[in-house]
Amino acid sequence: MFAGIFYSSGIIGQPGKGRLVSPEVHPDCTVTFRFRAPAAGLVELSGEFLRERVPLEKDTSGIWSVTVGPVGPDLYPYSFVVDGTGVADPNNPHLFPNEGFQRSLVDIPGDPPLIHAMKDVLHGTVSYRYYRSGSLDLIRPLVIYTPPGYRDDGSTEYPVLYLVHGMTDTEETWFKVGRVNRILDNLIAEGKAEPMIIVMPYANPFPALLKKNRDTDVNLLRTDHFTSEMLREIIPFMEANYRVLGDPGHRAIAGFSLGGRQCLAAGLGHPEVFGWVFAFAPAIFDREMEGNFKNLYAVPEVLNANLKILSVSCGKDDGLIRSARALMNEFEERGIQYDSFITEGGHTWMNCRLFISEAAQKLFK
Amino acid sequence: MFAGIFYSSGIIGQPGKGRLVSPEVHPDCTVTFRFRAPAAGLVELSGEFLRERVPLEKDTSGIWSVTVGPVGPDLYPYSFVVDGTGVADPNNPHLFPNEGFQRSLVDIPGDPPLIHAMKDVLHGTVSYRYYRSGSLDLIRPLVIYTPPGYRDDGSTEYPVLYLVHGMTDTEETWFKVGRVNRILDNLIAEGKAEPMIIVMPYANPFPALLKKNRDTDVNLLRTDHFTSEMLREIIPFMEANYRVLGDPGHRAIAGFSLGGRQCLAAGLGHPEVFGWVFAFAPAIFDREMEGNFKNLYAVPEVLNANLKILSVSCGKDDGLIRSARALMNEFEERGIQYDSFITEGGHTWMNCRLFISEAAQKLFK
Repeated sequence: MFAGIFYSSGIIGQPGKGRLVSPEVHPDCTVTFRFRAPAAGLVELSGEFLRERVPLEKDTSGIWSVTVGPVGPDLYPYSFVVDGTGVADPNNPHLFPNEGFQRSLVDIPGDPPLIHAMKDVLHGTVSYRYYRSGSLDLIRPLVIYTPPGYRDDGSTEYPVLYLVHGMTDTEETWFKVGRVNRILDNLIAEGKAEPMIIVMPYANPFPALLKKNRDTDVNLLRTDHFTSEMLREIIPFMEANYRVLGDPGHRAIAGFSLGGRQCLAAGLGHPEVFGWVFAFAPAIFDREMEGNFKNLYAVPEVLNANLKILSVSCGKDDGLIRSARALMNEFEERGIQYDSFITEGGHTWMNCRLFISEAAQKLFK
Repeated sequence: MFAGIFYSSGIIGQPGKGRLVSPEVHPDCTVTFRFRAPAAGLVELSGEFLRERVPLEKDTSGIWSVTVGPVGPDLYPYSFVVDGTGVADPNNPHLFPNEGFQRSLVDIPGDPPLIHAMKDVLHGTVSYRYYRSGSLDLIRPLVIYTPPGYRDDGSTEYPVLYLVHGMTDTEETWFKVGRVNRILDNLIAEGKAEPMIIVMPYANPFPALLKKNRDTDVNLLRTDHFTSEMLREIIPFMEANYRVLGDPGHRAIAGFSLGGRQCLAAGLGHPEVFGWVFAFAPAIFDREMEGNFKNLYAVPEVLNANLKILSVSCGKDDGLIRSARALMNEFEERGIQYDSFITEGGHTWMNCRLFISEAAQKLFK
């Protein structure tokens, strides 16, 4: 009767059909995926734990399923491809915040738990804030991690990391997929990272600017909007509203992919602002220091004198590894000091979590 | 070249295919929905702005589309039904947080803007917190709205509303679908609501308890876990960590649907704790005050003396309107004072936003 009332009033999306368990992670780390589609001709699983798509099999009730693995412990994006059309798993509430695709997340727990696991430690806070950007004439979101014990009016001031998402990601992706709050909570609890504030802006102003007819040059390689927004809006907002330390030695910038490009432009262009620059698989192309970025970067002597760490991270199988190596070659040719952190794997958020875990252990020390 | 690298590295879900614009809200409030599915036989639109599903039409490139409306201004859930299988709109990043279905959200702006619109006013903060529940032996999430100007250590203490989601919703639903932060920001800016803190717990412990083999009686009509969690865990967490006023006159509880049931059990069972009880389309059935709830409610004299407002809200087309009227009849028979707020419409989140907007203007006055 109870379910009937809710079904008939339309609050349940699939009237008369129970929810499937999908994904189901078994104790041996094999995983079963299920999808109800009686009329489909082919349902495939596309997952970042697979080398290629795997077909599901349909039972007589129209439920498709497949069991794969064992899958190594991590948090992976996946989707179903239904007769060629990619969709998220309708039975899984854990979704990847993104404007370019829709994928679900499956969490394979590790033993011992991975650094992004929810552990019984002190937990920081993730806050959704809104600020008015005078530069863009838009109200913009910010997602902000404050560490355990942070108080608005406390006597402690904290270093701050500005952390930028990738192309088509949103201000939520480092939280919901990067799990940066859990990683920092755990590293701080283990004494491996300094307590810090992490600010995650929404770095893509184009959809809102287009809607307002305020910009028509949608060139994602542009970094001008981002750098201006950081310097003129976001840093002042943070310094007015949070207990943040205001010197470059306590101000870092990092970003993934397109966000890595943006962080290089803002960070290497403004060593008087950022003392730490971590580019994670940055979307920067061969010899751009000589081209697009020529007038953006400070001179090597200034960078070497001001930057505590300039670091480039990338996976060996990432399509951008060649560009990352070219960038590091340019740094060497120019005598710019840098670190690198090269991992296995590709252009993935599994690697992003490694990159931020490594960076967090070096920052502000 | 840029896009090519990202596509080939697998970061884009639909390689080689551009993103579709869906939904596209036109100036006349008609809306075009699009879905790419060359192999599908039938794609329908299911939306809470429609009386029944509407079929889309396929063009020669395999893209299905339909234009509907004009649609009245509001924020509506919708999904596509592809050969009978419901899926969210893969081109729309705005999703309805829910464990029982997956739907997308389309926002039809009003002129003047509706009370849940993002306006250029002072904005509060929405924080994601985690606490350890000793009662449940689980780490649990809380989503907390603090009003503009709130400071952890400020001299101002605030009244607090505990606000509970419906069946299969999550702690995010009142934020992402109910838009309670925007509603409160706007009402506070207009001087129509008192500044208050709003606490949104995750009211369904069963998935985690089942996983831990700590409970097998998954009966959603039970209210014991919820009431215990509120009194023993959530209120103490809030009073230890936020500037909240600690008397019943400044402590309210409200909830939608199953959350309305939970709020009636906790609120009417504990008038020494909650001075304000707002049940929004509560999932309570005929004459439960005589049955399941008999020993839960305080006596009428105590309720009348302690409650500032007891209120029942419901839509006239809601499947639960008959039960809501039966509940109000019972209140009358027993001499329990109550308010009611009966709207058009059904068991929807469009109505939830009306309910919370009305309640917020009465609370703590």
